[in-house]
Amino acid sequence: MKNVQKRFFLSEEELPKQWYNIMADMPNKPLPPLHPKTREPLKVEDLGEIFCQECSRQELDQTHAWIDIPDEVLDHYRSYRSTPLVRATGLERALGTPAHIYFKNEAVSPVGSHKLNSALPQAYYCKQEGVTNITTETGAGQWGTAVAYAAQVFGLEAAVYQVKISYKQKPYRCSMMQLYGAQVIPSPSMSTRAGKDILTRDPNNQGSLGTAISEAIELAQSTPNCKYVLGSVLNHVALHQTIIGLEAERQMALAGEYPDVVIGCFGGGSNFGGISFPFMRHNILDGKQTRFVAAEPALCPKLTRGRFEYDFGDVAGYTPLLPMYTLGHDFMPANIHAGGLRYHGAGMIVSQLLKDGMMEAVDIKQLESFEAGVLFAKAEGIVPAPESCHAIAAAIAEAKECIATGEERVILFNLSGHGLIDMSTYDNYLAGNLGNFEYTM
Amino acid sequence: MKNVQKRFFLSEEELPKQWYNIMADMPNKPLPPLHPKTREPLKVEDLGEIFCQECSRQELDQTHAWIDIPDEVLDHYRSYRSTPLVRATGLERALGTPAHIYFKNEAVSPVGSHKLNSALPQAYYCKQEGVTNITTETGAGQWGTAVAYAAQVFGLEAAVYQVKISYKQKPYRCSMMQLYGAQVIPSPSMSTRAGKDILTRDPNNQGSLGTAISEAIELAQSTPNCKYVLGSVLNHVALHQTIIGLEAERQMALAGEYPDVVIGCFGGGSNFGGISFPFMRHNILDGKQTRFVAAEPALCPKLTRGRFEYDFGDVAGYTPLLPMYTLGHDFMPANIHAGGLRYHGAGMIVSQLLKDGMMEAVDIKQLESFEAGVLFAKAEGIVPAPESCHAIAAAIAEAKECIATGEERVILFNLSGHGLIDMSTYDNYLAGNLGNFEYTM
Repeated sequence: MKNVQKRFFLSEEELPKQWYNIMADMPNKPLPPLHPKTREPLKVEDLGEIFCQECSRQELDQTHAWIDIPDEVLDHYRSYRSTPLVRATGLERALGTPAHIYFKNEAVSPVGSHKLNSALPQAYYCKQEGVTNITTETGAGQWGTAVAYAAQVFGLEAAVYQVKISYKQKPYRCSMMQLYGAQVIPSPSMSTRAGKDILTRDPNNQGSLGTAISEAIELAQSTPNCKYVLGSVLNHVALHQTIIGLEAERQMALAGEYPDVVIGCFGGGSNFGGISFPFMRHNILDGKQTRFVAAEPALCPKLTRGRFEYDFGDVAGYTPLLPMYTLGHDFMPANIHAGGLRYHGAGMIVSQLLKDGMMEAVDIKQLESFEAGVLFAKAEGIVPAPESCHAIAAAIAEAKECIATGEERVILFNLSGHGLIDMSTYDNYLAGNLGNFEYTM
Repeated sequence: MKNVQKRFFLSEEELPKQWYNIMADMPNKPLPPLHPKTREPLKVEDLGEIFCQECSRQELDQTHAWIDIPDEVLDHYRSYRSTPLVRATGLERALGTPAHIYFKNEAVSPVGSHKLNSALPQAYYCKQEGVTNITTETGAGQWGTAVAYAAQVFGLEAAVYQVKISYKQKPYRCSMMQLYGAQVIPSPSMSTRAGKDILTRDPNNQGSLGTAISEAIELAQSTPNCKYVLGSVLNHVALHQTIIGLEAERQMALAGEYPDVVIGCFGGGSNFGGISFPFMRHNILDGKQTRFVAAEPALCPKLTRGRFEYDFGDVAGYTPLLPMYTLGHDFMPANIHAGGLRYHGAGMIVSQLLKDGMMEAVDIKQLESFEAGVLFAKAEGIVPAPESCHAIAAAIAEAKECIATGEERVILFNLSGHGLIDMSTYDNYLAGNLGNFEYTM
């Protein structure tokens, strides 16, 4: 294995110039999102009340398979992309598996995760449309960090509602956002009606992504020239993230391989969709039979145990009704450390794909995820984000299956981010202070 | 500037296969290190009591300009090298300078800094020679993290003495070392005579690199099959770090440029030597006139205010006597946050080069360093280590000189590591809680 090439890059000229919109190729399109009040299918204008115009258009575009990446966005992509595709030889050796394990290392982005891939275009479009302020929520802090930096890049002001439990667990995420110049508010806060409603009922409420989204939307709606930006779940976010899979496809070709299985951890679907959709297009169009596995936390199991139905994206019911696998928009997740996966619903596209049997989902227990993360850190040196540990655990499970059979299965997973801001969580894990808990409806 | 190429990589085939030993080409060789007891010039056997044999040989080799990198080390280098050479277009824009600023991004190493470049070969040689345990000290924690990971890679046990003030300021560095499987002891400790001597005199002593080195050497000397490894100052460490400059030279050629000035932050000299020596060889051999600037903290100014004399490398006087610029081996540095630069002496090679006028040194105040770091983070996205902020400050000063003159000076600096483990320090800076202090002898 010594002479196996370890890392694969693309030159700046080889970088993809378009994102891939899988909706154009899906055999069954997602059902339309509905207006939260009228319950009529949503129009671009409706979305445009909250989001910038271009993202609103992209959100509902089921026609165009390829969307041009604006030059200014490409210019900023070039400062960290292509991210490396890495052959995980250390992990293969540690497992003693004949499988070929590859990972796409999105942790090398300046903000430490894949989230910048969508924060940059969203901030760019806002700037183009004359928006001056953007607001958002963040769970683990990765999306908020990306928004803070992207806002700084394009000269916008950013206000970020950070889920309170994450604000406490990961104070340095807040530090990073402030370093880039953003304002950070722990959520639920008393600054919005949605936040007040919760805090007056439950003063010790530790927050959820659903609540933080409500707060950010309320701020956007009540502030002139302010738009809301979202880091996952929605179609246009997954669209921007397809840069991951499009690069990976070209890099896998450099490695002379094609994945048998593609794996991403799963919160709302943006990093999973980002790595999967470009490969799934070859299942749809070219008869490939790659498997796609979404790895979600056992404590927030919307794909494996949720219901497929119309539901709100937030606690207060400000968002459109989305056709999705959901645990219910008032679901309050346990305080697991994978804050980015602590969301009640799955994106519309992924929900439809799962319903149609075009992908699979597995649930990973908290301790299993950290065990996988520590093994990976020792084998590859990189400390993974708690979210990414779920993808690693699923990849390890696939690789272990190959030990008995001798199959040289080609496994590709997305390392969505690093865990350097989460070292206290690893401390707790190594000290035996983390539990598995049980999911209850 | 939009279409300027931003990042430059080497393929695995293009990676350097040898390190560069500048001692072979120096017009005036460094004076010999002396045995701490006999005061006679040191022999390889003397060094071999503390260090592994191969590093002892490399330390005293003034003959061979090129040293082969072992295949096993190259194999592990390939998991993160080449590191990117980056054109800092964001920083150039922010400054409005006509200068061309490049940085070598060593922060992408799995452990977050350049330190792994020497930890890997040192651990490898120890393994080859049948050593089972290695021990070292660490200031900011970057070297300790690298040793912990390198030990894990080659199946060695590692014990790391971490300077107590850093242990407190940067608890997550300790977490990383433990995650990789190392034992971490805050220094001064009661586990060695050197530590006890200090703690009985001064119970609240917050430690220094000089003290931690004494403790680690004492452990190595009193433990069978245990060797000491060092992360800076010594010749063989700078030798291993020349991989940085050798790559940078080839990458600058890809960019079609050659540096007018090369800058590194300065603690003991390993990252500075690593980026500088390969370019300095062209000053010595080919008549190039590149300037070399070591950026040290104003509070630990051995190059700008120290004396050139024989001194010990540690507090207790266990190390050889080295001919170097020093503030005295009992110098207790102020608790500045650039822990990696808090060392009383400069490496022998750099000391000789400075004495001979072949390089320059500047001192950077603490607030100036963080101001530079925050500007860099906003412009390039990457949060730099407090140590690296000194190099950035020096690079910015060079770039500002060009604004008036219009000179397109080509500036290259080494980004030795990221600051993601140091966010509490940035919090303190942003809150106005960091001072400048004054250096006093």
